[in-house]
Amino acid sequence: MNSQSARWNGVIDRYAKYLPVSDATPLVSLSEGNTPLVRVDNFVEAIGGKFELWLKYEGLNPTCSFKDRGMTMAVSKAKERGAQVVICASTGNTSASAAAYAARAKMKCVVLLPHGNIAQGKLAQALMYGAITVSVQGNFDEALRIVRELGETGKVDVVNSINPVRIEGQKTAAFEICDQLGRAPDFHFLPVGNAGNITAYWKGFKEYHAAGLADRLPRLFGFQAAGAAPIVDGHPIEKPQTVASAIRIGNPASWQGATNASKESNGHIGKVTDEEIIHAYKTIARTDGIFVEPACAAPLAGLIQCVKAGTIPPGSVITATMTGHGLKDPDNAIKAAGFEPFVVEATKAAVMKVIGL
Amino acid sequence: MNSQSARWNGVIDRYAKYLPVSDATPLVSLSEGNTPLVRVDNFVEAIGGKFELWLKYEGLNPTCSFKDRGMTMAVSKAKERGAQVVICASTGNTSASAAAYAARAKMKCVVLLPHGNIAQGKLAQALMYGAITVSVQGNFDEALRIVRELGETGKVDVVNSINPVRIEGQKTAAFEICDQLGRAPDFHFLPVGNAGNITAYWKGFKEYHAAGLADRLPRLFGFQAAGAAPIVDGHPIEKPQTVASAIRIGNPASWQGATNASKESNGHIGKVTDEEIIHAYKTIARTDGIFVEPACAAPLAGLIQCVKAGTIPPGSVITATMTGHGLKDPDNAIKAAGFEPFVVEATKAAVMKVIGL
Repeated sequence: MNSQSARWNGVIDRYAKYLPVSDATPLVSLSEGNTPLVRVDNFVEAIGGKFELWLKYEGLNPTCSFKDRGMTMAVSKAKERGAQVVICASTGNTSASAAAYAARAKMKCVVLLPHGNIAQGKLAQALMYGAITVSVQGNFDEALRIVRELGETGKVDVVNSINPVRIEGQKTAAFEICDQLGRAPDFHFLPVGNAGNITAYWKGFKEYHAAGLADRLPRLFGFQAAGAAPIVDGHPIEKPQTVASAIRIGNPASWQGATNASKESNGHIGKVTDEEIIHAYKTIARTDGIFVEPACAAPLAGLIQCVKAGTIPPGSVITATMTGHGLKDPDNAIKAAGFEPFVVEATKAAVMKVIGL
Repeated sequence: MNSQSARWNGVIDRYAKYLPVSDATPLVSLSEGNTPLVRVDNFVEAIGGKFELWLKYEGLNPTCSFKDRGMTMAVSKAKERGAQVVICASTGNTSASAAAYAARAKMKCVVLLPHGNIAQGKLAQALMYGAITVSVQGNFDEALRIVRELGETGKVDVVNSINPVRIEGQKTAAFEICDQLGRAPDFHFLPVGNAGNITAYWKGFKEYHAAGLADRLPRLFGFQAAGAAPIVDGHPIEKPQTVASAIRIGNPASWQGATNASKESNGHIGKVTDEEIIHAYKTIARTDGIFVEPACAAPLAGLIQCVKAGTIPPGSVITATMTGHGLKDPDNAIKAAGFEPFVVEATKAAVMKVIGL
């Protein structure tokens, strides 16, 4: 191996000592993790902030969402147990990841999606990776209920985040942030849907701190969409609604984990409207060239709320999780952009006219 | 900085000594590069190969294609010169990248796309990053001709690969492959469209070899789509046709570079049909969970040809560039998958029936 830059072989290989794996665990990996941490000064300037903001660009995992961190664990452990079939309910990112890792492990994969409510890219992924794809005439929470029931038959291995090893894998993102920053942040912002990720980050930050690898514990600030904000509103939402399909969840599986993370870290769980989400979604693309799926814009919209409320001390170091790439949801992007290409004939003069040269 | 894992700050930061930059060059980066090199034994087994195959997964760059490596150079150098506006012609990946880096640099971006022939994700990117997006009623080659003419006015900076610093940035992928593998491969496979990338890889492999950082020079094997194979056919193609929109180019700007790379490396430039492309595109997703845009399947289809022809010595170490992520082109993926999700009511019994439990 060339000493300058050893090859990254995924989060289990890198962080094995913090994970429930052994030499007997087969490594099912697509080299997930090791995603960029990108400082976005233009965005901070645009929203009038006086702090450092770094985005953990999880959309650059192999299936373009953070789910791959937990899925490498879930599928590796399922293979270790000799499982033949994995199953999950999903708003789309989990199913894409499960399908990819199951393919790599030569296992069957069944995914249950809420009918008519899946971003196009995510549907394309489940189909291409060869998963048995079932569109359930109900919402995510109903699909998850069926998955739990099927898991009880013992014939399938559930790889939703109710499977605790998913959380274990996902916590590695907190490790990487500390490694990349050379310290823990003062605040960490992230979207809250099924609430597995906020649970995982808090676990990760605490473990790295306990191991002496992070100098402090960040305050965790999670944001739900206003039409799908059961934790903020204090009760399950029967018909959750939001443009941010990845967090369109009315009864989060890790509700308690999210509440604990917020309380223990002196954090906050808030909500933002779809208008605020779309505004932040467009802003981060145009100020810093970072294209994310709409759910990622929830914590950015939440940060804008905090700037307005004056709750962020100047000089703070803030990190935020961008859970999935914007290419997951091209339809929403084209709608949100609010304009169409100019169509012109193939001449220099015609092009100069529309571009104002 | 924590010593375990310093932060990656993009290809200029990492490989500055091999690039035409100085302390005066502003660094416009999105932390591009550092993409995974993934070994795909399942695919090799499926095609009956007797070698190691490693995929350089360039779809995990910030805008989900390899173009970001050249674009960080092109936009940084344009900013150094004080340029206000960058322009490019594109089948979609270059425009996405130019738009993102221009946004980050606070510059204007104009992109010219062949009308009606752009993958949906790529169009979404240009619009979201805020580029002035012009759909030209002609093919890529006509759009590039207009860009060349506009460049001659001196009012815009051309960031197509006719801009030589693009090639300089792109060659860093060859450096990374050598660093990740601890050696140079015996063969490197890649798609050939406008031919900038094969030109860049050959330059990169040669420079690393000359610097004593790679122990050998690989043979470069490039593949064009049969309906857009000017180099193989020996003449420009006026109306190039292929499902692989990223290499739907009839008159490559770097034609000579491709020919040189093939000759000097004792390599090969071949062509593959759309049927072979779609077959390889589906196979790599299903055997190894790697979802790429159709153009990336051209070298995989070419490798299948080579296996059938017996031209790869057993035990060879082969690398291949997967230029863009499958999410760039969800429409083609859903079409290629060849099946639709099952739609069922939200009950355990209904789901069990369709999944055969």
